[in-house]
Amino acid sequence: MGRNATAEKLLVAASELMIQRSSIEISLSDIAQKSGANAALVKYHFGNKDGLLLALLARDAATEVTNLEYLLAQPISPTAKLKLHINGIIRAYYRFPYMNRLIHYLLHESSAEAADEVSKFFVAPLLDFHRRLLEEGVAKGEFRVVDPVLFYTSLIGACDHLFFGRHAMSRAIGVGPVTDDVCRQYIAHMEALICGGIVKGANGE
Amino acid sequence: MGRNATAEKLLVAASELMIQRSSIEISLSDIAQKSGANAALVKYHFGNKDGLLLALLARDAATEVTNLEYLLAQPISPTAKLKLHINGIIRAYYRFPYMNRLIHYLLHESSAEAADEVSKFFVAPLLDFHRRLLEEGVAKGEFRVVDPVLFYTSLIGACDHLFFGRHAMSRAIGVGPVTDDVCRQYIAHMEALICGGIVKGANGE
Repeated sequence: MGRNATAEKLLVAASELMIQRSSIEISLSDIAQKSGANAALVKYHFGNKDGLLLALLARDAATEVTNLEYLLAQPISPTAKLKLHINGIIRAYYRFPYMNRLIHYLLHESSAEAADEVSKFFVAPLLDFHRRLLEEGVAKGEFRVVDPVLFYTSLIGACDHLFFGRHAMSRAIGVGPVTDDVCRQYIAHMEALICGGIVKGANGE
Repeated sequence: MGRNATAEKLLVAASELMIQRSSIEISLSDIAQKSGANAALVKYHFGNKDGLLLALLARDAATEVTNLEYLLAQPISPTAKLKLHINGIIRAYYRFPYMNRLIHYLLHESSAEAADEVSKFFVAPLLDFHRRLLEEGVAKGEFRVVDPVLFYTSLIGACDHLFFGRHAMSRAIGVGPVTDDVCRQYIAHMEALICGGIVKGANGE
């Protein structure tokens, strides 16, 4: 088995373990056992556990970035693209619950080098997508002019908070967990908020 | 000096140190030295450092909750209250840079008990404020019907991300730090987003 095939097997094992346990707290020996590979191979391929976590997030981010390019090229209106994008972010966080935890861990609790890597392969392409989508929306007369960095911050912050902030709410004050139904409701809420806001007078309802 | 006066001095010393160092990584002995009190008094009043951090956040949250009640009682429109509230959240995070870090630390990296406390004295009153403000807006015909938990998640997530997510952006991909000017821009962005959205067709521009 070549280098890439083994590395890929280790990443698959790591992601399956994180989904099973609803946690990113997994050990190198758990990953090795699950994948059937020797624990030394994790070090050989990724250096250490943070290296493996970074590679896992990079793998998932690459899929999402491909989806962004595909979305931007579709023959639909900027508003329709924006709605599909909101749907896509929330669905991706829901399908890969560890992604949100990994981003927080690698950006804030790991090394500065790991945080820089995440910025480059995750934050930068997403910000670039927002910039181009907003430009297209303005050019086609659909969007008012919006600063892409501020837009990125508000949209990603709001989506992230459903998954990162929610468990703090659920534990002590009786707000339920994030189910498929809550996701659907939040997608509808964010679409309505981002597209039309909540003030009736402002959007002519 | 009575118990409360000493405890208050320790909290003031802790908050001043966090502002000076732009970090919540401060030691008990630093706090003791800064306040002129004995380090054993920290343990006497707060149990341990997490107890002191929790008391500090509770002190600041109490001020903010008082402000929310004051705002709700003002003889102005729900839309005007909502705009002042957005302004208030972003300004509070900007004035007390450690507040955002403390919330994240106590909710996610400390004990379950600390997280429950933060939910009760910080999340619950803010959610209750949103519920009442949204009800008032709907009753007066200004807002469309919005779920308060979803609204809380999106507004707080978006405001939080300016302060928590921004340094990851600034380091690697050339987005500048959060200055007074960036705060002003983000307040305007969030007001426009929450009140009117970004789609021109939807808000009649």
